[in-house]
Amino acid sequence: MAKELTIVKIGGNVINDPDQLMSFLRDFSNLEGMKILVHGGGKKATEMADSLGLSPKMTGGRRITDAANLEVVTMVYAGLLNKNIVARLQAFNCNALGLSGADANVIKAHKRIVKEIDFGFAGDIDEVDATMISSFLDAGLSPVFSAITHDQNGQLLNTNADTIASEIAKAMSGIFKVDLIYCFEKSGVLRDVEDEDSIIEEINRQSYTRLVENGVIADGMLPKLKNCYEALGQGVDKVRIGKPDLIRNKEIKHTTLKL
Amino acid sequence: MAKELTIVKIGGNVINDPDQLMSFLRDFSNLEGMKILVHGGGKKATEMADSLGLSPKMTGGRRITDAANLEVVTMVYAGLLNKNIVARLQAFNCNALGLSGADANVIKAHKRIVKEIDFGFAGDIDEVDATMISSFLDAGLSPVFSAITHDQNGQLLNTNADTIASEIAKAMSGIFKVDLIYCFEKSGVLRDVEDEDSIIEEINRQSYTRLVENGVIADGMLPKLKNCYEALGQGVDKVRIGKPDLIRNKEIKHTTLKL
Repeated sequence: MAKELTIVKIGGNVINDPDQLMSFLRDFSNLEGMKILVHGGGKKATEMADSLGLSPKMTGGRRITDAANLEVVTMVYAGLLNKNIVARLQAFNCNALGLSGADANVIKAHKRIVKEIDFGFAGDIDEVDATMISSFLDAGLSPVFSAITHDQNGQLLNTNADTIASEIAKAMSGIFKVDLIYCFEKSGVLRDVEDEDSIIEEINRQSYTRLVENGVIADGMLPKLKNCYEALGQGVDKVRIGKPDLIRNKEIKHTTLKL
Repeated sequence: MAKELTIVKIGGNVINDPDQLMSFLRDFSNLEGMKILVHGGGKKATEMADSLGLSPKMTGGRRITDAANLEVVTMVYAGLLNKNIVARLQAFNCNALGLSGADANVIKAHKRIVKEIDFGFAGDIDEVDATMISSFLDAGLSPVFSAITHDQNGQLLNTNADTIASEIAKAMSGIFKVDLIYCFEKSGVLRDVEDEDSIIEEINRQSYTRLVENGVIADGMLPKLKNCYEALGQGVDKVRIGKPDLIRNKEIKHTTLKL
């Protein structure tokens, strides 16, 4: 039987709150077995860009990564956040190894092709090196990924952290039984976005399609769940969505996605 | 016979000049055998601190790392510089792995004890994990160290890059035959600091003591050479000091330090 691997993705809501982050990192350290953390950026990059007098570049409501903003996210995601998370995990006796996609060439990507919108230095992932990541896990290390990849030609690329988590999960599922957990600010997929008690506890592909058609899954949840179903469709065993507490207590209500 | 390992340290002068950095990284990639790069910071951290309105904290001519400046060096050294160097090395087919001392717990340090001066979040190194670094080398990776370490209690620490290079060299010399190269802006130790032709091609411990007494080795060269002799005294095979070109062409005049 394949070894189990837990992959956890945390987003800005956890990163932005020092107490919540500390509590989450303690819980992550206590997770048994092999594990990988993927972290988003949070508001620190925006604050840093503001402090440096950079105005966010937006097109059609989407953020554009120009060269100056790429510098900022590289500093904040791969430097400040990643190294502080790693140092904190070490204090909790979790032997963390901070990685960008360029490190050990673990995530190869390309600059997003310009169609209607030029997203600038945004990366779309081509390949995840599951063998290399597996060798880090075998060495007792817990990789901690920031949302920065590279194009193998020396260019760093800003890459969606949800997608990184899903691509790593897909690649690792060839070797491990992968449990992918997306932690965010809600308790799961909600039938009514204003009502935390309206959690849909289980979604399968059929109900997923219906929830999209009915507009229950909309906005930011659409790409998140698309990532989940891509992962499930390519061998990932289980995907769960919920609050960060979920990794400490599996009984907390959340959404489980199935094929 | 022990395997050979080359450890190269580059400083601000290389980092600050994009052409020189690119040329150096190409040369580093072409170095045969196992290798480690340690990089200093350069002026980018100072520029970033200026842009953020932080004034450098100095006491008795020495730089103090307060919390705000620690954030800056963590961003710039471990994020911006380290990841761009790693991505560039990948483009040159060198499988680089960017590391701070917190990653995989490879460099354990403590906050410098306050005597006359409180240096703030400056780190003094306690231990380098040669076994872990060796396992990265065995996996075909070239570790690239930024000058950030940690105290195992969650605190990152700003640490002198020359010292990091020397401490790694000492630790690795238990496993490898270590060749340590310090690249800086001069051609080596100069008899007359104004005359690039006055290179002292070989220094042994006896002549070193004399050169210090005569004031030929002074100022910034004192701690650099102290690091070198500590490394030599603890098993490092050879220490060389010179311009970055030295790693491409060993015939270029430089200073070799011996016991």
